[in-house]
Amino acid sequence: MARQKKTIITCAVTGAIHTPTMSDALPYTYDDIAQQAVEAAEAGASILHLHARNPENGSPSVDPNDFAPFLPRIKQATGAVVNLSTGGSLTLSIQDRINPAKTFSPEMCSMNMGSMNFSFHPLANRYGDDDWKFDWEKDYVANSDQNIFRNTFRDIREAAKTLAPHDIKFEHECYDVGHLYNLKFCMDIGLFKAPIFIQFIFGILGGIGPEADNLIFMKRTADRLFGDDYRWSVLGAGGAQMSLATTASQMGGNIRVGLEDSLFISRGKLAESNAQQVAKIRRIVEDLGSQVATPGEAREILDLKGGDRVAF
Amino acid sequence: MARQKKTIITCAVTGAIHTPTMSDALPYTYDDIAQQAVEAAEAGASILHLHARNPENGSPSVDPNDFAPFLPRIKQATGAVVNLSTGGSLTLSIQDRINPAKTFSPEMCSMNMGSMNFSFHPLANRYGDDDWKFDWEKDYVANSDQNIFRNTFRDIREAAKTLAPHDIKFEHECYDVGHLYNLKFCMDIGLFKAPIFIQFIFGILGGIGPEADNLIFMKRTADRLFGDDYRWSVLGAGGAQMSLATTASQMGGNIRVGLEDSLFISRGKLAESNAQQVAKIRRIVEDLGSQVATPGEAREILDLKGGDRVAF
Amino acid sequence: MARQKKTIITCAVTGAIHTPTMSDALPYTYDDIAQQAVEAAEAGASILHLHARNPENGSPSVDPNDFAPFLPRIKQATGAVVNLSTGGSLTLSIQDRINPAKTFSPEMCSMNMGSMNFSFHPLANRYGDDDWKFDWEKDYVANSDQNIFRNTFRDIREAAKTLAPHDIKFEHECYDVGHLYNLKFCMDIGLFKAPIFIQFIFGILGGIGPEADNLIFMKRTADRLFGDDYRWSVLGAGGAQMSLATTASQMGGNIRVGLEDSLFISRGKLAESNAQQVAKIRRIVEDLGSQVATPGEAREILDLKGGDRVAF
Amino acid sequence: MARQKKTIITCAVTGAIHTPTMSDALPYTYDDIAQQAVEAAEAGASILHLHARNPENGSPSVDPNDFAPFLPRIKQATGAVVNLSTGGSLTLSIQDRINPAKTFSPEMCSMNMGSMNFSFHPLANRYGDDDWKFDWEKDYVANSDQNIFRNTFRDIREAAKTLAPHDIKFEHECYDVGHLYNLKFCMDIGLFKAPIFIQFIFGILGGIGPEADNLIFMKRTADRLFGDDYRWSVLGAGGAQMSLATTASQMGGNIRVGLEDSLFISRGKLAESNAQQVAKIRRIVEDLGSQVATPGEAREILDLKGGDRVAF
Ligand SMILES: [Zn+2]
Ligand SMILES: [Zn+2]
Ligand SMILES: [Zn+2]
Ligand SMILES: [Zn+2]
Repeated sequence: MARQKKTIITCAVTGAIHTPTMSDALPYTYDDIAQQAVEAAEAGASILHLHARNPENGSPSVDPNDFAPFLPRIKQATGAVVNLSTGGSLTLSIQDRINPAKTFSPEMCSMNMGSMNFSFHPLANRYGDDDWKFDWEKDYVANSDQNIFRNTFRDIREAAKTLAPHDIKFEHECYDVGHLYNLKFCMDIGLFKAPIFIQFIFGILGGIGPEADNLIFMKRTADRLFGDDYRWSVLGAGGAQMSLATTASQMGGNIRVGLEDSLFISRGKLAESNAQQVAKIRRIVEDLGSQVATPGEAREILDLKGGDRVAF
Repeated sequence: MARQKKTIITCAVTGAIHTPTMSDALPYTYDDIAQQAVEAAEAGASILHLHARNPENGSPSVDPNDFAPFLPRIKQATGAVVNLSTGGSLTLSIQDRINPAKTFSPEMCSMNMGSMNFSFHPLANRYGDDDWKFDWEKDYVANSDQNIFRNTFRDIREAAKTLAPHDIKFEHECYDVGHLYNLKFCMDIGLFKAPIFIQFIFGILGGIGPEADNLIFMKRTADRLFGDDYRWSVLGAGGAQMSLATTASQMGGNIRVGLEDSLFISRGKLAESNAQQVAKIRRIVEDLGSQVATPGEAREILDLKGGDRVAF
Repeated sequence: MARQKKTIITCAVTGAIHTPTMSDALPYTYDDIAQQAVEAAEAGASILHLHARNPENGSPSVDPNDFAPFLPRIKQATGAVVNLSTGGSLTLSIQDRINPAKTFSPEMCSMNMGSMNFSFHPLANRYGDDDWKFDWEKDYVANSDQNIFRNTFRDIREAAKTLAPHDIKFEHECYDVGHLYNLKFCMDIGLFKAPIFIQFIFGILGGIGPEADNLIFMKRTADRLFGDDYRWSVLGAGGAQMSLATTASQMGGNIRVGLEDSLFISRGKLAESNAQQVAKIRRIVEDLGSQVATPGEAREILDLKGGDRVAF
Repeated sequence: MARQKKTIITCAVTGAIHTPTMSDALPYTYDDIAQQAVEAAEAGASILHLHARNPENGSPSVDPNDFAPFLPRIKQATGAVVNLSTGGSLTLSIQDRINPAKTFSPEMCSMNMGSMNFSFHPLANRYGDDDWKFDWEKDYVANSDQNIFRNTFRDIREAAKTLAPHDIKFEHECYDVGHLYNLKFCMDIGLFKAPIFIQFIFGILGGIGPEADNLIFMKRTADRLFGDDYRWSVLGAGGAQMSLATTASQMGGNIRVGLEDSLFISRGKLAESNAQQVAKIRRIVEDLGSQVATPGEAREILDLKGGDRVAF
């Protein structure tokens, strides 16, 4: 891996795992998503990883109409890179899932590198039947023990081919060691071009766990498979968020925080906003001697097409 | 991991990946499966991991009627432990897949610890359209880029609960690091009891790769998660078979070979039989100072219920 | 390794590597050592790792007369655990080196677990001939390419036997993987009793380097060799100090900072005092959710004899 | 590390650790050393790592007069590469130790990359006072708990500079992770040129232990530090000899066997000769699909000056 000087902070603003009941801070209206995204950028995030939600009840949405209201506002208010999720549904087809990216042609979008169990059903036990704010939430969480996050080799190829004309840089989300091998396979058949950007993800039930040992192992496997052809970032889910981000930054990596990945600011204490998490990790990282990348620096490090070439 | 003295050789006789076109040695008739299994046991395998196939065309089968013809013959001719696959179909439900285990109540059956891509479509390129012996083969192989090997948390729980009365020891097939975490989660909620038996699997497209580094990492992750509560074995797919088995045996682990996992006896040379692979790895392992476990010793190491308590 | 709740900060106040020329903050008079030690304790260090120096010119000393002036003052002003070095000379015999520990019977003393090159001669290039404050410094630094830090198995046994009646807990300084094996050998022949306390040291020229990968590897080797019988801490020399300490704390380990190990507070900026380093790492560690151990908690975690049973 | 096709077997014929009492097969007369070296080459060793001994009593010798009688005979009878030890004494100076290499200008000589404890005193307990064949043996073994194998940075530089005109390729013996960092330091200041040849050594008391995990870690550290600039081999001391050699060969590395490193051919059974060990590891390695390098291939892989440019 080529050494880089600055640390890119990505903020994943709302995601599709957590539900409104779990935290009042979780944004799901167009306004809230826009505002929290902008504030996260102001706090130091140079990439905004975005999902949409149904503004009425907060349920995950991959409908471009649910992205349209906030994308231009974010673009206007900040120079941060917009990164759209293509993993926002566990039931819809890959074509539905990449529809927002196809529609808005962002600088970046996520690309999940394998199929896996993706479960958060133990969270359901924390809430009584009357605690849920919206109808859909309980089943959504409790039944996630049936989830398969579907990303077959054919799905990946289809997504890559469809999006190729858009010159989008992918955030290759890798939840386990095998996903790195999958990514290598896809590079070898020409689906992606260097430098690729890998998001190592730790602590999802179904993927690799949140120990620092795993981070080191994922990184050195990537070193072996990709040499200088990759850039990397780390996402620790839940309680591992700040800790793994800190370790990653000290290893020369980039980091991702945000309410998609953890609702907390410290043990047992809910974060008030995405910006609060960004500000915290920025403070720690700077205290340890790293510098945070501006959006422009992030664009250079990741070789992005530029904020003027998006379709929103 | 508690140290053990003897090395258990499992032979996986036919599996569900390879097709008759790929090797004449691959058994799929009742007779061939029975004979190769018995010979593998005679060569030193103390566990026989068995799938069934349609005897007409060699396609994978989970129909108990396709197991019935060979199970009693194997039992009569050898004292080896019979281990039935529960992963023999990528399309059928978990209930269908565990049907053979439910029907025959073997001492052991496989239990796959997570969902994943499971692909071998690159193999299709090795054969011309006229090379295929049977109609089903080409599509089966070429379309495996769409495969998801489905093993959700709910599937695993259902299989474990259904089979619990049978006192079957599971061969927990783990294709990636996350599968170890899945297994830990399942143990914590009481689905499996120590000592568990883990089959580390390397080299399947969709799972972790076949490097020795990965073997070491899987084992030490298991050490951390399971302490003395597990026994382990290694399966290297394809060209990594003999090499990883050798390394595993030198680390105190058990090993799995067989035509399910590799069709070769050495680089570029097809194996003539399962027994030939067993004999080869036995020779190497003994040359390096290990001793091969008898079926009785395997039963003791894995704490099995005994060959007299099966339903065939 | 048994999990612990609190993070013990050790401060190594002056050591024997750095010389007065390198930083005005490096204490070497009795007063300075006492004052900086006390302030480090006030800032959050619960263990003070102490060397003596010649108060006239700052050269390293293992003479008990150079410890006597500051030990009682430190004891009076703080409840922190006093830990005396036994490694303070690269030329004197082990009997001379353990003399301070024998004389003052502290709660802890260091114990180096192997012989090694121990060099810092590249530092000499940073200074011109006229830069050195004292005569001894230049040769001391420039000739360290000849250094062997001598700790033979016989030396270790002799030190352990001599100090046994004092009920001192050792800080087992391990600069490389082999030192852990040496320590295991010594435990197996009865020299040390559990729980032992291991200081993993990274970044000394002659020992293992300062990468996070090495920290993980040292820890897991210790896990394998010592199971629950050890407690651990991390010391990163030079620029790796804060980074490795942070990572260690996130892995559940304890940490050591101080001017013995690094003269800097951030890249290119000299620390003003030991206390400044303690305060900084404390701030980071607390920000990441850990709590700093009091001296009383440190005594309990490490099973120390108590501050009332020392001979000063 | 660049991939190579063939496996180089080095045979270390007699060394300086074992004593005549320990095995009748250990050669120490000129004739025995010559004959066993030649037979080892015939069995498949393409490099012969040689020490001399006093032909009267088998004690280690670095006197060129004790090399002179066998070097020409070995050269005449075999095309194998001659590699002379520079580590054959724990008491003499580096200049004495490199004297044989300076005198005979071989194609290769060993170069130890750090100071360390180097002990085998536990072996003394296996023999009664009357068991020793020669006077010197008992003290030599029993007092090795005082040993420091001395290789300071200045020693290494001196040896490198003195031998530079001879165009000798070094076998960089690395007994621990820190030795790799030492080697990197030496390369950075220009002492050695690529491709360097590293001998990873496992299982000496004082160095890193003989677990496969350690082999993987040493190799990946070397990958990180040296990239494509190194070739490597593995030496497992004592009982780990065959096992680690096998694992190394499967990872693409070269291997070293011989009575210097282990006196045994299998558990509890003394080897009859060096050639017997070479033949055994060759059989295993070939069984696993590797091919053994000829002396010519070894010369090419390691970029040696050629057997015609030596001074014997
Ligand atoms: Zn997302
Ligand atoms: Zn199977
Ligand atoms: Zn010290
Ligand atoms: Zn030697």
